[in-house]
Amino acid sequence: MPMNRLVLTPGEPAGIGPDLAVRLAQQRHDCELIAVCDPDLLTDRARMLGLPLTVDTKTDTTAPAVATRPGHIRVLPVSLAAPCRPGVIDPANAGYVLTTLEQAVDLCRNRQADAMVTGPAHKAVINRAGHAFSGHTDFIAERTGASHVVMMLATPGLRVALATVHIPLADVPAQLTRSSLARTLRVLDTDLRRHFGLARPRILVAGLNPHAGESGYLGREEIDVIEPVLDEAREAGLDIEGPLPADTLFTPDRLARADAVLAMYHDQGLPVIKHLGFGRTVNVTLGLPIIRTSVDHGTALDLAGTDAVHTGSMDAAVAMADELASHARA
Amino acid sequence: MPMNRLVLTPGEPAGIGPDLAVRLAQQRHDCELIAVCDPDLLTDRARMLGLPLTVDTKTDTTAPAVATRPGHIRVLPVSLAAPCRPGVIDPANAGYVLTTLEQAVDLCRNRQADAMVTGPAHKAVINRAGHAFSGHTDFIAERTGASHVVMMLATPGLRVALATVHIPLADVPAQLTRSSLARTLRVLDTDLRRHFGLARPRILVAGLNPHAGESGYLGREEIDVIEPVLDEAREAGLDIEGPLPADTLFTPDRLARADAVLAMYHDQGLPVIKHLGFGRTVNVTLGLPIIRTSVDHGTALDLAGTDAVHTGSMDAAVAMADELASHARA
Repeated sequence: MPMNRLVLTPGEPAGIGPDLAVRLAQQRHDCELIAVCDPDLLTDRARMLGLPLTVDTKTDTTAPAVATRPGHIRVLPVSLAAPCRPGVIDPANAGYVLTTLEQAVDLCRNRQADAMVTGPAHKAVINRAGHAFSGHTDFIAERTGASHVVMMLATPGLRVALATVHIPLADVPAQLTRSSLARTLRVLDTDLRRHFGLARPRILVAGLNPHAGESGYLGREEIDVIEPVLDEAREAGLDIEGPLPADTLFTPDRLARADAVLAMYHDQGLPVIKHLGFGRTVNVTLGLPIIRTSVDHGTALDLAGTDAVHTGSMDAAVAMADELASHARA
Repeated sequence: MPMNRLVLTPGEPAGIGPDLAVRLAQQRHDCELIAVCDPDLLTDRARMLGLPLTVDTKTDTTAPAVATRPGHIRVLPVSLAAPCRPGVIDPANAGYVLTTLEQAVDLCRNRQADAMVTGPAHKAVINRAGHAFSGHTDFIAERTGASHVVMMLATPGLRVALATVHIPLADVPAQLTRSSLARTLRVLDTDLRRHFGLARPRILVAGLNPHAGESGYLGREEIDVIEPVLDEAREAGLDIEGPLPADTLFTPDRLARADAVLAMYHDQGLPVIKHLGFGRTVNVTLGLPIIRTSVDHGTALDLAGTDAVHTGSMDAAVAMADELASHARA
């Protein structure tokens, strides 16, 4: 089987993204990894960490992928706009971060790369620099022309997708419309088949209200919004159970008989998966024409350039991108 | 140390509550257990289950507590209004269920019992019979004159209390007021000291919005409601961390350094604890002048009188009531 080429964007240069790239480069991989970033940033960070690093900037992305040896990294160079000190964010480099993302997306779109893996960006500093940026997911969706994307977290034994994401809790009931929920379900089902090799994904869908509304006593969204959408999806052949009370949906018995959970909102879906998989949970964006995985943590500015950086989530994000890309080829 | 006397209300007679009482009676206990129910209901159910049961209805609740032997049970008799068939609810017996609760509460209030343990009731059938009944907790709060009660679930290694409980998700933001949150925190802290033997409980408080509002970008309740309350509570000497993002609050590391979590609403707080402790999670009501624990499951009508009943949550509820009563004596 041909090897996959993954592009990696370390993200915010003052955060732990460059550390993660340097540490990834110390390992052996069964795929080709290309970091899209400033090469000097990586050599500086490697020196700081006392790790060996040889940077190769002469990568031909039209040739077949070839893995690098431990201690080596391929870089598609993008220059920082201002010098970077670990831990010190600088709006001057916000444009740099966005350029690395654009280049990585474009490599995936034109099939010179099989998947992209994103490190953590710093939303506030990018916005402060004058760029409207609500996060990687929306940025990549827009650049790829994706009409409906779904955020899913995955860790061994559990996948959780969200029907609504980063909005105030008070806005959740209004944002949960029949049409958006129907599209989310369709994207989830389609991408679980396409990228995860599941012939007929078994999906557990949570209710919105406690006890899934208790027949309307604790809210009517299950009756008015969720049930009609699930009925229609079942008729279309999807394997769906729900709407289920969220508190008993995540019991080990139930999860063992499912491929994914669809939660209605952020804090209903993520506590269990982050409890189970913290430090090795991967964020996957579904509904894109490309494959994109991400770490599930932030920039951790205070840890940049130190020995305290855990690579678990990045390792898992790379492994999952490689796996999804292989399914997509198959 | 003197032995505790616990009163047990099996709840809905057509559900698995009587089964749980019969099965409890098969075990040895270091406390005295008195079931408040129809004695014939228990002997009938025991016969159905093929379990030995001798019922003693001549209990003197003013004498010191004495444990029963396995196969025996003490009963404070209350008569069913209509014959009961497992699995078949009958509004005629709704008043019976409420009478057993009243008697159990009153025994605790006048100190003839040290704690009460409740089995599952069937809310809908009680309401259908014309009694306004929103659940055990409110019923017991009203009868004991408690002004502010808090629902907490507990399992080994985790306790989760809720700032709002059984209301539609859309109503949560409005119900989360400074005054109610302040009272909830005070009750939680007080009862963890009083009943759980914790000198200075370490409490983790979740935010309401994703990422705890992300400095106001994802909702303002953290800034306007939660932070002021937590600041005041800290000044009063409480050991509080928060408002914390709910998705990373439940990581094992963090939980290991805390005695309890205060979640803002039902489905934010309960998925992790029910994942961890399903089948042996106990519901404890804080803020009452008496001690009350409960199973964390429903009536399971279809399982009544069968071999498929799990006693884990009831066993844990009895053990916890006994433990809390001992702390209260100390």
